[in-house]
Amino acid sequence: MSAPLVGIIMGSKSDLAIMEDVTKQLEEFGVLSELIVASAHRNPTQVHEWASSAVARGIKVIVAGAGKAAHLAGVVAAYTPLPVIAVPMKTSDLGGLDSLLSMVQMPTGVPVATVAINGAKNAAILATQILGTGDEKYRRVIEEYKVRMSES
Amino acid sequence: MSAPLVGIIMGSKSDLAIMEDVTKQLEEFGVLSELIVASAHRNPTQVHEWASSAVARGIKVIVAGAGKAAHLAGVVAAYTPLPVIAVPMKTSDLGGLDSLLSMVQMPTGVPVATVAINGAKNAAILATQILGTGDEKYRRVIEEYKVRMSES
Amino acid sequence: MSAPLVGIIMGSKSDLAIMEDVTKQLEEFGVLSELIVASAHRNPTQVHEWASSAVARGIKVIVAGAGKAAHLAGVVAAYTPLPVIAVPMKTSDLGGLDSLLSMVQMPTGVPVATVAINGAKNAAILATQILGTGDEKYRRVIEEYKVRMSES
Amino acid sequence: MSAPLVGIIMGSKSDLAIMEDVTKQLEEFGVLSELIVASAHRNPTQVHEWASSAVARGIKVIVAGAGKAAHLAGVVAAYTPLPVIAVPMKTSDLGGLDSLLSMVQMPTGVPVATVAINGAKNAAILATQILGTGDEKYRRVIEEYKVRMSES
Amino acid sequence: MSAPLVGIIMGSKSDLAIMEDVTKQLEEFGVLSELIVASAHRNPTQVHEWASSAVARGIKVIVAGAGKAAHLAGVVAAYTPLPVIAVPMKTSDLGGLDSLLSMVQMPTGVPVATVAINGAKNAAILATQILGTGDEKYRRVIEEYKVRMSES
Amino acid sequence: MSAPLVGIIMGSKSDLAIMEDVTKQLEEFGVLSELIVASAHRNPTQVHEWASSAVARGIKVIVAGAGKAAHLAGVVAAYTPLPVIAVPMKTSDLGGLDSLLSMVQMPTGVPVATVAINGAKNAAILATQILGTGDEKYRRVIEEYKVRMSES
Amino acid sequence: MSAPLVGIIMGSKSDLAIMEDVTKQLEEFGVLSELIVASAHRNPTQVHEWASSAVARGIKVIVAGAGKAAHLAGVVAAYTPLPVIAVPMKTSDLGGLDSLLSMVQMPTGVPVATVAINGAKNAAILATQILGTGDEKYRRVIEEYKVRMSES
Amino acid sequence: MSAPLVGIIMGSKSDLAIMEDVTKQLEEFGVLSELIVASAHRNPTQVHEWASSAVARGIKVIVAGAGKAAHLAGVVAAYTPLPVIAVPMKTSDLGGLDSLLSMVQMPTGVPVATVAINGAKNAAILATQILGTGDEKYRRVIEEYKVRMSES
Repeated sequence: MSAPLVGIIMGSKSDLAIMEDVTKQLEEFGVLSELIVASAHRNPTQVHEWASSAVARGIKVIVAGAGKAAHLAGVVAAYTPLPVIAVPMKTSDLGGLDSLLSMVQMPTGVPVATVAINGAKNAAILATQILGTGDEKYRRVIEEYKVRMSES
Repeated sequence: MSAPLVGIIMGSKSDLAIMEDVTKQLEEFGVLSELIVASAHRNPTQVHEWASSAVARGIKVIVAGAGKAAHLAGVVAAYTPLPVIAVPMKTSDLGGLDSLLSMVQMPTGVPVATVAINGAKNAAILATQILGTGDEKYRRVIEEYKVRMSES
Repeated sequence: MSAPLVGIIMGSKSDLAIMEDVTKQLEEFGVLSELIVASAHRNPTQVHEWASSAVARGIKVIVAGAGKAAHLAGVVAAYTPLPVIAVPMKTSDLGGLDSLLSMVQMPTGVPVATVAINGAKNAAILATQILGTGDEKYRRVIEEYKVRMSES
Repeated sequence: MSAPLVGIIMGSKSDLAIMEDVTKQLEEFGVLSELIVASAHRNPTQVHEWASSAVARGIKVIVAGAGKAAHLAGVVAAYTPLPVIAVPMKTSDLGGLDSLLSMVQMPTGVPVATVAINGAKNAAILATQILGTGDEKYRRVIEEYKVRMSES
Repeated sequence: MSAPLVGIIMGSKSDLAIMEDVTKQLEEFGVLSELIVASAHRNPTQVHEWASSAVARGIKVIVAGAGKAAHLAGVVAAYTPLPVIAVPMKTSDLGGLDSLLSMVQMPTGVPVATVAINGAKNAAILATQILGTGDEKYRRVIEEYKVRMSES
Repeated sequence: MSAPLVGIIMGSKSDLAIMEDVTKQLEEFGVLSELIVASAHRNPTQVHEWASSAVARGIKVIVAGAGKAAHLAGVVAAYTPLPVIAVPMKTSDLGGLDSLLSMVQMPTGVPVATVAINGAKNAAILATQILGTGDEKYRRVIEEYKVRMSES
Repeated sequence: MSAPLVGIIMGSKSDLAIMEDVTKQLEEFGVLSELIVASAHRNPTQVHEWASSAVARGIKVIVAGAGKAAHLAGVVAAYTPLPVIAVPMKTSDLGGLDSLLSMVQMPTGVPVATVAINGAKNAAILATQILGTGDEKYRRVIEEYKVRMSES
Repeated sequence: MSAPLVGIIMGSKSDLAIMEDVTKQLEEFGVLSELIVASAHRNPTQVHEWASSAVARGIKVIVAGAGKAAHLAGVVAAYTPLPVIAVPMKTSDLGGLDSLLSMVQMPTGVPVATVAINGAKNAAILATQILGTGDEKYRRVIEEYKVRMSES
């Protein structure tokens, strides 16, 4: 019960300003998560190990945020059978179109579930929806969230 | 056991040439699915009813394929707490960039899990990964698929 | 006579800063309007009801403003025979190209009349031009506006 | 009563393959139209005269199709108080993004109602919707069309 | 000798901040110019008259600056045999890509000579180069300018 | 009198299929031209010499066609005070957007006069318009061409 | 002397049609190379091992070709200190803009040397230029190639 | 030993704010460099001479930074057999997409090694990797840098 279900990874500390919305929203939903900052390019071994051992640690869903040539979600997906949600970071030059295409256009065989540019909160909602396919508690959390949203 | 777990919807019959890869791959994985052709714009009531009743029908994951101003995945997601996977169709004028942005850039509160342009097969893999978070059988299906892929 | 002829809808309160130009310009033209904030994704039932009942309320033209994966105009158009004018909101990452393509690239059967990114004032002018096709008073309003414009 | 209500203009004979869908759909709807081929750049005087006299000829709505630096709709709109629907033509190099931006991004004061790239049929539907705001007969035509569409 | 050789036109007073560089650079080169603010859409008759009479006024080259759906250069070119230089204005949403494509993608028969987004100074240099094809004085002005440039 | 006035250069023999329209249109206008195939990158010295000596050879205007990272027009412009018209070639991957931006976005000090993607015929018309600023014969050629165009 | 100096890797067999130009050009230059087909996503361990051991095998330069969300060059670069040349494959939907941005926009710390979309031959030339910085034989090969090119 | 191995060139003094990161990083790596500001368009002869004499000066690798229609890297590459690294400058209107395409899309025969928009630091790392193919000292510098990076 106390083990994290969602693993959050981001390529750079500078992504935290956006990606902390994943943690916040998951907390609001009562979903435990773990968080790591590791780059697919600067820390490939660490990413490899974290992704490969995610199932064993009890992780059910992964959320990966990265920018520019954003390979992190794809690299993580290469090493795990778990669903991987990709959050493309907005970039200062191309607005995040580079991050988006680098994430969403994954080749056949290894999908990642891409949300909007800087869509960290939506990544948390999607992660909870995914948990809800196996545990009704989380589906009800989403149902209540949708009711609150439609009323506000 | 014999009820479909994945609901597949597409906006137009012309999308079938691409979207039948979702069904084929799910069959290969032993995942039951149902399929409907209905447009968010031409058949809004039908889409509304299909999406709203998906949970009651036992559906766990939805896959929606559409092109151009591709609203289908977002409209379905508005009416269900289930995770919705979006497949942007390639378009003859803008190559599918329109379909992609219309799907992936969902506003806060209602995510859809977008895969690559014409990424129907990847949508099936992602749907199975999502089912695998609640049922180990499907996670093992993916693990075996990844082993076969790495060996071929 | 005192019933609103133009229905204005927007997906988020944050769109008001731009969309209030629709109301202002319509007022300047002496066209009555009503305004609602409702999201196609967060408040689908409310949007559905508002759009479906627009004809009965005496509305002649609808103006819908939304951003990112901007489905609002298309969803409204699915539920009404009235002409729907779409105002794509500028976005902070892709500049509004996402909003624009999500609105203008509507599939065959359900058009929306798209104006420029953040083109709220032009939406009001177009709405009045449309009213002018059935009521000469409004055509004269536009003719006078064009004269003033060419003189200033 | 037998005078055309919709004026159709296109910049080049090569646009006819697409733009004849406007005429066909209007005929199906029982809407009379007139058609002219004239370029904003090669035949500016002819365009000027055609647009300036449209109201006097009884035209209620204009549909303009053009490609590349597609100025036709905007030039027509400059000379008439009538609503102008713009159909951006697909182009062989940029897919029609050039036509689309040249049409939809009209400056404040002179809107055009832009539909999808090559969206000729939708232009006819929108024109009929606009006529429907002044004449219930055409609104009913659209309502019946939407019913047929949702049933097929 | 005291008549202006270059006619400068822009679509909006807000373009002056950029377009005054045309005047400044021409002055530095000793080239007389005239300047007018008139929109192809809001002041079509004024633009028409100004362009049609340019040859008679002794103008040799025209520089037109406009933004968004930037039709001004094309509309001017339709009414004059003179070479027309187009300066696409940077826009706040699409960065000027809309202005650029609206200007440069002119259909066969009516070219405009497009320079860079916000390239007002270059428009002045190009105008002087064009004058230099008929008057060696201006070619020498450019040759000296290029020498100064290569030395600084 | 028998010396060519327009120098045409292109980066590759494969550009000839498009660029021969420059020659054809100039011939139709009675403008003598010379033509060379030389790449800014593969034959830099040849380009340098051809451009540097153009004034001495009596050339008044240069037309340069190139594709992809299309530096040819800019490199020629660096070596001559003559006006340089740039024809961006359509490319098989990016449709010519790469050629267009590589040509039109010239930095301050060295403009090139860019026409549409594959706009070879327009380059010839623009070249003749430029010649017309110094020689009324060519202005009349253009005036007659415009009359013929508006009548056809 | 008989060990390969350039390691060529590509993500999919379908890339061979383009990437065989790397081998051909290297052969023409007398540069030995080895070639492997392995996907960063489908065969991550194989890629990891190949890249990590490249220095030990005597490889001096790596050429990686991949399409869509093209992570291969970046993943290889993460595991080797050698320079990695990236060849973005043209894609059928976005023309290769996705491959290009996924490769060139590498984050700080781990560059890849990106050439043009489908620029396989140029990758071979660049690889040989790089070898030429340490071995004059290869610099002379390039010098001779440039002479031949300028003469043809 | 005291001669510079890397030649750095940029098109404008305004590029220095970004390009000084090349020098800084090379210094940190103990690589000597020389730096010049010269534009391919404003100072073509200077660029020609600097590039042509680079080999004779002992330069092994060149880094060229430029913006907009960024021809500098290609022009330098035309005059030298050395590998040329291109740094596309971010631009205020198109975000650097223009600089990027102008650099990376080089035609067959003359590659440049393009890094990310504003990727000056990565250019220095790539230059050192290239030096490392001929001198193990620099390969070890990179190996140590990668270790430090993975640990931080």
